[in-house]
Amino acid sequence: MKADPLRILDVAGCSSQMALPGSTRLDRWALTRIQRTVQSAPIRFMLWDGFELPPRAGRAVASIVFKNRPALLSWVWDPELNFGEAYTSGAVEVRGDLLTVLEAIYRALAGPKPRPWWLWQKSNDARAARENVHHHYDLGNEFYRLWLDREMVYTCAYFPTPDATLEDAQIAKMDLVCRKLQLKPGERVIEAGCGWGSLALFMAKHYGVTVRAFNISAEQIAYARNRAMEERLVDRVEFVEDDYRSVRSACDVFVSIGMLEHVGLPDYPTLGRVMDRSLTDHGRGLLHFIGRNQAAPLNPWIRKRIFPGAYAPTLREVFEHVLEPHALSVLDVENLRLHYAKTLECWRQRFDGSAHDVAAIFDDTFVRTWRLYLAGSEAAFTTGWMQLFQVLFARGSSNAIPWTRISG
Amino acid sequence: MKADPLRILDVAGCSSQMALPGSTRLDRWALTRIQRTVQSAPIRFMLWDGFELPPRAGRAVASIVFKNRPALLSWVWDPELNFGEAYTSGAVEVRGDLLTVLEAIYRALAGPKPRPWWLWQKSNDARAARENVHHHYDLGNEFYRLWLDREMVYTCAYFPTPDATLEDAQIAKMDLVCRKLQLKPGERVIEAGCGWGSLALFMAKHYGVTVRAFNISAEQIAYARNRAMEERLVDRVEFVEDDYRSVRSACDVFVSIGMLEHVGLPDYPTLGRVMDRSLTDHGRGLLHFIGRNQAAPLNPWIRKRIFPGAYAPTLREVFEHVLEPHALSVLDVENLRLHYAKTLECWRQRFDGSAHDVAAIFDDTFVRTWRLYLAGSEAAFTTGWMQLFQVLFARGSSNAIPWTRISG
Repeated sequence: MKADPLRILDVAGCSSQMALPGSTRLDRWALTRIQRTVQSAPIRFMLWDGFELPPRAGRAVASIVFKNRPALLSWVWDPELNFGEAYTSGAVEVRGDLLTVLEAIYRALAGPKPRPWWLWQKSNDARAARENVHHHYDLGNEFYRLWLDREMVYTCAYFPTPDATLEDAQIAKMDLVCRKLQLKPGERVIEAGCGWGSLALFMAKHYGVTVRAFNISAEQIAYARNRAMEERLVDRVEFVEDDYRSVRSACDVFVSIGMLEHVGLPDYPTLGRVMDRSLTDHGRGLLHFIGRNQAAPLNPWIRKRIFPGAYAPTLREVFEHVLEPHALSVLDVENLRLHYAKTLECWRQRFDGSAHDVAAIFDDTFVRTWRLYLAGSEAAFTTGWMQLFQVLFARGSSNAIPWTRISG
Repeated sequence: MKADPLRILDVAGCSSQMALPGSTRLDRWALTRIQRTVQSAPIRFMLWDGFELPPRAGRAVASIVFKNRPALLSWVWDPELNFGEAYTSGAVEVRGDLLTVLEAIYRALAGPKPRPWWLWQKSNDARAARENVHHHYDLGNEFYRLWLDREMVYTCAYFPTPDATLEDAQIAKMDLVCRKLQLKPGERVIEAGCGWGSLALFMAKHYGVTVRAFNISAEQIAYARNRAMEERLVDRVEFVEDDYRSVRSACDVFVSIGMLEHVGLPDYPTLGRVMDRSLTDHGRGLLHFIGRNQAAPLNPWIRKRIFPGAYAPTLREVFEHVLEPHALSVLDVENLRLHYAKTLECWRQRFDGSAHDVAAIFDDTFVRTWRLYLAGSEAAFTTGWMQLFQVLFARGSSNAIPWTRISG
C-alpha cells in the first residue's frame, strides 16, 4: 500500500458527532469549486452547518453533505480518489439514492481525460498479480455467495430479455460464449482466469470439451476443484493454480472472461504471446473484458480500494498489443454495456439485502465501500462511461470460422 | 500518373513472338531468387526457353512462365508491382488456374510487412479524391452492368447460406445493414459514398427513412438520380454530387459502405469530425470497409492500376483516428471475410462470362487487368490476407441502442 499524503487530513477521524465550528468563506468557496466540476448535475451540495448550494439548474435529485472540513478539502484536492474515501468513512453523506447521484455526476463530467499514465504504471508481474488478485478474490467464498448467482459467476451476464433472472442470464452468457466459439466435443480449451470454475465446468458438461483452467486465487481454485469432484468432471476439467503466463500446452480454443482487466497494459504483449504459442493452426479465442471508448486510467479510488493494478482498455489497445502482433483476426465484437448495468443492478440489490450479513463478516466501512463500488460501477455502465466487450478472434489464415455469427 | 522507373524495361514491348536468346546463368539465378520469395508455394517457374524450376516440395498446381528477360528482372526488382504489370501485358503467362496460383502465393508469403508508409502517402484532398474515384467508378455503367448484380451493388454481399445467389445476397446485405442500424420511419440518414444508389433507395423504400446520399462519381450519381425518379422516391432520397467532407446537415444515422477504403489514413480524423458534427445525441452509424489484421499499404499494383489513393485499414486504425476522438462507442463488429470471397467469386465468374463484351468496350489488356484484380482480391479474402469489417457504433452517452444484436 502506498503512502497517502491525504492521511494528514484524517478524513475519517473527524466524526460528525463532534461540535464543529460554522463554515467560513473559504469553506463556501471550496464548495462552489466542487460544484463547478459537475455543474450540470442536479445535486444540492451542503456543509456541516447547514449551508447549501442548490443545483445550478433544475431541481435537486439528491444532496451531498460534507460533515467536516477535511472531507471538503480532500474533494478539492483529488475528487476522483476522495469521493470514495470520504463516502466510505462517513465524512460525506449522500441524502437520496446513491445510484442516482453517481449517474448524475458521470453524466455531468466531460469524460475521462486521456493522459500518458502508463509511463508510471508498473507492470503486474506474477507476484504483483497474485497480491492484486488475493486482495479482491480471496475475501471469502461465503461473502461472494451472499450476492452472486447460484453458479458464482462474477462477470457480466447476458440477459436474453431485460426481465430474465440473474441465474438464467449467467447460464445464457456461458452458453453464448460457447456458441460463439463453436466448441466441438473433444476440443482442448484453455481458460485464463477461471473464477470459481463455472464456465470451465459448463463447457465440459454441455459441449464435451476438455479444459485447463488457470487462476491465481487460492480460494477460488479450491472451490472449483471441489465442484469438479462433486460433478465428476475431474477427468475433463483441470484447475491449475497458476498465472496465465504459465500457459504452455496447445489448445484449440483460448478463452478469458474478466481477466484482461487485471493484466494491465504493459503485459498485453505477453498475453498475446501466450495465446499465439498455445493456439493451433485452427485455433480461436474469446476475450471478455470491461473496456472504454477512450483510453484513460481506472478511477484511483477503485484501484486503491477494490482492484489494485486493474485497467480497462479500449478495443484499440487490445487489438494493437494483443491480437495484431500475431495476425490474429477479429471475427466478431459485441458490446454488452447495458447487460453489465443490469448485472450490477442485480448484484447491488442482493448485496443490499445481505448488508447485515456482510457487516457481520467484515464491518460497516466494508459495506459502504462495496456499496459504492457496486453502485459506481452500475452508474459507469448506464452512463456509457464504461463498456463490456466480447471479442471473438481466430488465426488469420484459418477458414474454419463461422459462416454467419450467432446472436443470443 | 507517376513516372515509372521500370518503363525502361519495356515489359510489354517484348512480345513472346520475337526470337529470344536462350536463358543465361543470370536468368536462372533470377528465377531461383523469385521462387525463394514464395518457396512453399506448389508452383513451377519457367523461362522463355523452356528452362523450369519445379516446386521445392509437392506437385505443381500450375506454372508461371516468363516470356522475356525484362519481365523476369522486373519481378526481381519489385514483385508486388510487376506481377500485375507483366501479367496484364502478356509478358508473364499463368498456365493453370489463376485463382489457385494467387492463393498459393498469398499462403506462401509471410504476410504484409508493416512499415511507416503513411509518412509519404499524400492526403486524398477533395480534388485527388475526385480523380481517384473517376479513375475507377466512371468506367461506364454499361461495363459494371455486365457483371454486377441487378441492384448494381459494388461491395461485399451477405450470403445467408453459401449457396444463396448474388442477387439475394446483395438484398440480404442491405437489409442486414438496416436492421443493425435499427432504422425507424422518418429518421434522417446520411450515406457517404452511395455508389449507384441501391442502399439509399432500399432504406427509403423499406424502412421509411429520408436519405441524403453523397458521391463524387458523376456517372453513378446520374444513374442513382434516374432510379430515384423511376421509383418515385425523389421526395425521400436526395443524391448529392459532393465529397463526404461537405456533409453538414444533422442526421440520426450515418452510414458508409465501401467508401473508407478511398478516404486514406491521413483523412480519417476529418471523417470522424464530419460524423461527429452530423450525428444527433442519439445518433448511430455503420462503417463497412475492407480491412486488415495488421497494418500495411495496399498492393502497389492495385494502387497504380485499380484504386489510386486507396488503403485498407486495421480496426485499430479506424477506432484510433475516426471513432475514439469523439467518444463514439463501438456496439458491434462483424467480419464478413468469407462473404467477400464468395462475392468476388460471383463477380469473377460473371466477368469471365462477359469478357468478350468487356474487350469490345475496352481491350484485352483491360480484361487481363480486371481478371487479375478480381482473382487477386478473391485470393486475398480466401487466404485471410484481407478482411471485411462492418462496425456499428453510437454516441457513447446514448442508451437508445439495441438490447441484443441481430444476426443475418
